[in-house]
Amino acid sequence: MDMQNALGLSGGQAELVYNSFSFAVAAMGIAFVYFLVSRNRVAPAYRSALTMSAMICGIAAYHYWRIFGNYAAGTWNEGYRYADWLLTVPLLVAELVVVAGLAKDVARKVTPRLVAAALLMVATGYPGETAADGSSARLVWGIISSVFMLYVLYELFAGEVGKALKSQSGAIGKKLNNIRYLLLFTWGVYPIAYILGDEKSWLADALNLSGSDATTAIQVGYTIADVLAKPVYGLVIMSVALARSESEGYKAA
Amino acid sequence: MDMQNALGLSGGQAELVYNSFSFAVAAMGIAFVYFLVSRNRVAPAYRSALTMSAMICGIAAYHYWRIFGNYAAGTWNEGYRYADWLLTVPLLVAELVVVAGLAKDVARKVTPRLVAAALLMVATGYPGETAADGSSARLVWGIISSVFMLYVLYELFAGEVGKALKSQSGAIGKKLNNIRYLLLFTWGVYPIAYILGDEKSWLADALNLSGSDATTAIQVGYTIADVLAKPVYGLVIMSVALARSESEGYKAA
Repeated sequence: MDMQNALGLSGGQAELVYNSFSFAVAAMGIAFVYFLVSRNRVAPAYRSALTMSAMICGIAAYHYWRIFGNYAAGTWNEGYRYADWLLTVPLLVAELVVVAGLAKDVARKVTPRLVAAALLMVATGYPGETAADGSSARLVWGIISSVFMLYVLYELFAGEVGKALKSQSGAIGKKLNNIRYLLLFTWGVYPIAYILGDEKSWLADALNLSGSDATTAIQVGYTIADVLAKPVYGLVIMSVALARSESEGYKAA
Repeated sequence: MDMQNALGLSGGQAELVYNSFSFAVAAMGIAFVYFLVSRNRVAPAYRSALTMSAMICGIAAYHYWRIFGNYAAGTWNEGYRYADWLLTVPLLVAELVVVAGLAKDVARKVTPRLVAAALLMVATGYPGETAADGSSARLVWGIISSVFMLYVLYELFAGEVGKALKSQSGAIGKKLNNIRYLLLFTWGVYPIAYILGDEKSWLADALNLSGSDATTAIQVGYTIADVLAKPVYGLVIMSVALARSESEGYKAA
């Protein structure tokens, strides 16, 4: 395939990024359909979790389609990723609450807090991402955004959601535990990519990553993290919803 | 990203407007799917409200897709917004009546009046929007359109719908109250943008907003207002429909 180097990538790098984006479009698009048609397999109480998974993957399919189109035309726009996260990250935390087994009043109290923190985490990351490399704006917005991320992680590991996730035994308890670590692992990619995106950062320096190597690592890393954090995460959420539905005697009609 | 300046915006402004439009496409498109698949979660009497929310968001997704495509190609067409509102604004008021808890005969009487007023509000705004800056046509059509808007707001705050909305207590009453203020707040953006769109207006003068600053403020403002007035408004309407369904003993199968 004849690859363009308009973005300064070598032939092999350009092809890897190109194929990653196309892979993400396919994975997200089909996961959108899968979660939509699977809604009736779980009891009504858990369907909103599958609906949210479908929405997350549908939104991501749209954004990867645009990122892919822009890339093929020789341009980057990191704004697409932030627009995507602004819509999907609040849904990712909200769907976890649906299957976490919280009391209804606790869920109603904790969901708006988590959604607000997720929104603020993404919204405050954007001005940092678009600030100049090595600037203090990049550092300050990154720290502000991290505070909101730490709050979300605190809630999921030690707060009310964390307690509910840990208190459950058997297969469901094990799955809920896996979800937390999947979240921690995949979300960890984003701040790393944020720091690596700044070529003057200590991390870019330590890893000796810059230019097209850094760009390729960031774009492929984001794509892998997004596939794990969206369709794969949705599958684990769905397996909890299926297990709960079964244990409550629900049978799909 | 290498942004075009064909519309006279600076690089940062052009990128902000571009990302806002793309964000709106994603938000409206996914809200369309969400309201469609969520219809069965509410009792049959309230499903038409969710169907209308889906229609509103689907129509808006189409128009933002066109506005975005036109913008990327370097052209504006404010006609898309008016075509959108002509279809969506009557639905926005009609779906409120569905969940407002009016007696059936009152709802049947008040809906056509509200729909007609909403249609006339949008239809008379369009000739003003396309009139020359500082012209008397712009002022006169603006005033005529405002009269219809004030009638709709009168109906929702003091008329028969207003009385029904205020007379309900508990969680449902609180939500209905929030809906009215969400409508008032988001609808308030449109006349402000209409006045600001006229560079010779007292408001553009007072705020010292003109040229690309005004354009950016108007386009981003419209987009935020549309996301609040359509998907977010639809979510609040849905939460009323869910609460009413639950209080009536409805259970999704």
